[in-house]
Amino acid sequence: MAKSKNKGVSPSRQEDFPAWFQAVVREGEVAELAHVRGSMVIRPWGYAIWELMQAELDRQIKRSGASNAYFPLFIPLSYIESEAEHVEGFAKEMAVVTHHRLEEDPDNPGHLRPGGKLTEPLIVRPTSETIIGKSFAKWINSYRDLPLMVNQWANVVRWEMRPRVLLRTTEFLWQEGHTAFATEEEARENAEQMLEVYRSFADSFLAMPVLTGEKPEGERFPGAVMTLSIEAMMQDGKALQAGTSHYLGQSFAEAAEIDFLDREGERGLVHTASWGVSTRLLGALIMSHSDDIGLRLPPTVAPQQVVIVPIPRGDEGPAVIEAAEELAREIGELSYDGVPVRVSADLRDREPPDKRWEWTRKGVPVVLELGPRDLKEGVVALRRRDVDAKPESLERSRVADAIPALLAEIQGAYHRVAAEQLADRTGRDVTDLDGFRAWFDTDPGDASAGGFLRAPWSEAPESEEILEELKVTVRCLPFDQELPPDSRCVLTGKPAVAEAIFAKAY
Amino acid sequence: MAKSKNKGVSPSRQEDFPAWFQAVVREGEVAELAHVRGSMVIRPWGYAIWELMQAELDRQIKRSGASNAYFPLFIPLSYIESEAEHVEGFAKEMAVVTHHRLEEDPDNPGHLRPGGKLTEPLIVRPTSETIIGKSFAKWINSYRDLPLMVNQWANVVRWEMRPRVLLRTTEFLWQEGHTAFATEEEARENAEQMLEVYRSFADSFLAMPVLTGEKPEGERFPGAVMTLSIEAMMQDGKALQAGTSHYLGQSFAEAAEIDFLDREGERGLVHTASWGVSTRLLGALIMSHSDDIGLRLPPTVAPQQVVIVPIPRGDEGPAVIEAAEELAREIGELSYDGVPVRVSADLRDREPPDKRWEWTRKGVPVVLELGPRDLKEGVVALRRRDVDAKPESLERSRVADAIPALLAEIQGAYHRVAAEQLADRTGRDVTDLDGFRAWFDTDPGDASAGGFLRAPWSEAPESEEILEELKVTVRCLPFDQELPPDSRCVLTGKPAVAEAIFAKAY
Repeated sequence: MAKSKNKGVSPSRQEDFPAWFQAVVREGEVAELAHVRGSMVIRPWGYAIWELMQAELDRQIKRSGASNAYFPLFIPLSYIESEAEHVEGFAKEMAVVTHHRLEEDPDNPGHLRPGGKLTEPLIVRPTSETIIGKSFAKWINSYRDLPLMVNQWANVVRWEMRPRVLLRTTEFLWQEGHTAFATEEEARENAEQMLEVYRSFADSFLAMPVLTGEKPEGERFPGAVMTLSIEAMMQDGKALQAGTSHYLGQSFAEAAEIDFLDREGERGLVHTASWGVSTRLLGALIMSHSDDIGLRLPPTVAPQQVVIVPIPRGDEGPAVIEAAEELAREIGELSYDGVPVRVSADLRDREPPDKRWEWTRKGVPVVLELGPRDLKEGVVALRRRDVDAKPESLERSRVADAIPALLAEIQGAYHRVAAEQLADRTGRDVTDLDGFRAWFDTDPGDASAGGFLRAPWSEAPESEEILEELKVTVRCLPFDQELPPDSRCVLTGKPAVAEAIFAKAY
Repeated sequence: MAKSKNKGVSPSRQEDFPAWFQAVVREGEVAELAHVRGSMVIRPWGYAIWELMQAELDRQIKRSGASNAYFPLFIPLSYIESEAEHVEGFAKEMAVVTHHRLEEDPDNPGHLRPGGKLTEPLIVRPTSETIIGKSFAKWINSYRDLPLMVNQWANVVRWEMRPRVLLRTTEFLWQEGHTAFATEEEARENAEQMLEVYRSFADSFLAMPVLTGEKPEGERFPGAVMTLSIEAMMQDGKALQAGTSHYLGQSFAEAAEIDFLDREGERGLVHTASWGVSTRLLGALIMSHSDDIGLRLPPTVAPQQVVIVPIPRGDEGPAVIEAAEELAREIGELSYDGVPVRVSADLRDREPPDKRWEWTRKGVPVVLELGPRDLKEGVVALRRRDVDAKPESLERSRVADAIPALLAEIQGAYHRVAAEQLADRTGRDVTDLDGFRAWFDTDPGDASAGGFLRAPWSEAPESEEILEELKVTVRCLPFDQELPPDSRCVLTGKPAVAEAIFAKAY
């Protein structure tokens, strides 16, 4: 531990990418699996990143016309049964509440056991489609009540047999938007509009360019007519689905009995859509930008964008502290991306190098150091987290002017590197199965090998078998189809029906 | 329903206060008990009020030095057992998860049943003291890690046998702050500081003046050394505890093994505090200010502060709509309480009187109506929700200027009425048991009778029996003690040790 504190995380990305990810999450104090198998604690630093994401997404969700609301955590078993009837492939790994009390265990003194058995078990929501649908059925009477667009920020639970922090946990946080419309066209449009919200959020706020497209039938949300997703490429070349949006047709409306009187006085079922992103985004952010030293945060999502570390030696101590505080005040009056720069002077009772390394590991974009000599010379030492270089000496009087532009530059640099990787590691020249096997047959330890493959696809059942064998999935059929006429499926040689993005995935 | 839509809610406060409250909550589209016994849906309008409260409280919590974080929903049974050992009076009505899967029920085709029994049952958090404590134990090593101040916005579950919407529900939303300090003094100070945050929040943001004080021993949070609370008076004279703050001593630190190395190199236990408010505040807000027409919202917590209802008749229709939109734009550029005025023009396809009544029932502080004739005369009709009067005709050119001051006036008016009621209905002249009985022996249907009683108290055990019989509780020992020397207990005639606030309570 002591060693890693001063030299970045161990192992490196190249040595063991999954272990590197866990180390970055741990050392960066983002989150930890704790207390209950598969559950996580999101630590203050990680939660502050999530809050910044939430605030921006929430603004955009509200701008789309949706309102936030809150629905019960517990879902009656009967609701789930009715949904399971309507939806094939319905997953059943969920937490079941069967009792409403603890009582002394007479067989085991000093211990407690469940008591007060419920007549109907309750399910801890894995998603709220069914319960929100039943509320919609009550609230919607006529076309005048449409569209109805509701979003919920909530915790959900899906039992995970192989949990991984931030990526696959039994409980996670998310937002789920549920919308109802009079027509198919409007519902599809809503699903498309929200995917665009996610795309532009990932691209500009997370500095994480993504691919957008439709999921093939086998990868759709169970019960959906159309599932759209944004797909990000991690630094090991694998895909991470970072947000989805669904047009659900009328099947959920039928299950929940959401009908309405239209303008002509006829009753009909509404068309529904839903869309969501989760704390997985934190995982995507980290695997997109972080390095072997630790976390790297785009300034937009950095809880602290600038940290000032004073080095108060000798008699000059108080003057150095005072100068650090004054500098923080000055920088705090600047703006970046429309809000005041998030800055602080770290005055805690710790050694300056430990502080510097802590903020570096936590991904703070800019660390400024200030000692007695700097004070005398009228400079500060500036460390940028986006480059691996020695600190720059900057004139004190120029610092304030420089910060906003520097933050914009760092944001741009992270985006550029991620965009280059996405472009460079998306193969486009593979035309047959041998080439396909070779593309994905990489050393699992080699994080710089592999990537996405963009190629024609037949959607034939036998292609699914090959994919399963190679542990490769179709991420999406990208919106910007460029399928040449008479293309052949890269997997089967049969006539292709679409261009697909193939990748190994989280 | 149709009738009540145009005449306010039924019954009135005077007829049946609890039923009136439920009607206001329902007709104002704030929340509803639904789907699962004791669970509630917080509807978009109610949730928007909660979000405004949250945002303001969150700012103040962060200003106190605490950071937000997130801890697991599920708590292992063993944690609860260890807490139950340490804490007398530990409540055990909680939801217990015993299975992690649903499976087909072979005995009941087409139905599902719990499967995958857990080796250790999990408890759905009723509060997170225990799980946060165990994390603190991991994170705190030395005095350098102190103070540690964490807050969580979360859902919690406590099984309720007699649920009431917003006031007592099985699941509710809250914030829980948990803090650890090296010394008792700092921990007590934190508990006191956060109570003051709650007091000033209730007073200025919710326009709801409250009493502050310490709970007597029997009313403390189980395990706490000191419990402080803010107590609000509802319009039926009953008390509602609207926020609490606890100094927990070292017993929780002992149970969770939170020790630290102090400056002298000695290991010791930390001192902890905790503090919280919940969606109960929505109930308190409503029972403080609303009237027989429906919800009344102080402008600070009104999701819409001004709504413009156009009355587009005949040829002038489009011009009226345009004028309404222009007015909304203009008002939206104004500020009240440091943020832009929340205003909208209601252009939905409904009858103008229905719109006006909807916004009135929902408590919007100002409704502006605008028809062809108003347009011609250069006026708008202004309705204030705080007074029961005919609309005022206001010159169009003066509207923008008038709005911020008007909102401030309405905020002040709600506060004044609530403060007057709190003062007028707090008895101070009762000196013996007969008087005490008479004070609380009121017709339960008479919402204007009764109130708080401030009187000397002995804390003697037999006084507790009398209180139980009369269904009266000691709300707090107010901070501003004014106990005359040689005072006698109002209940027992024994020497009094403190002034207490007595009341019936929610």
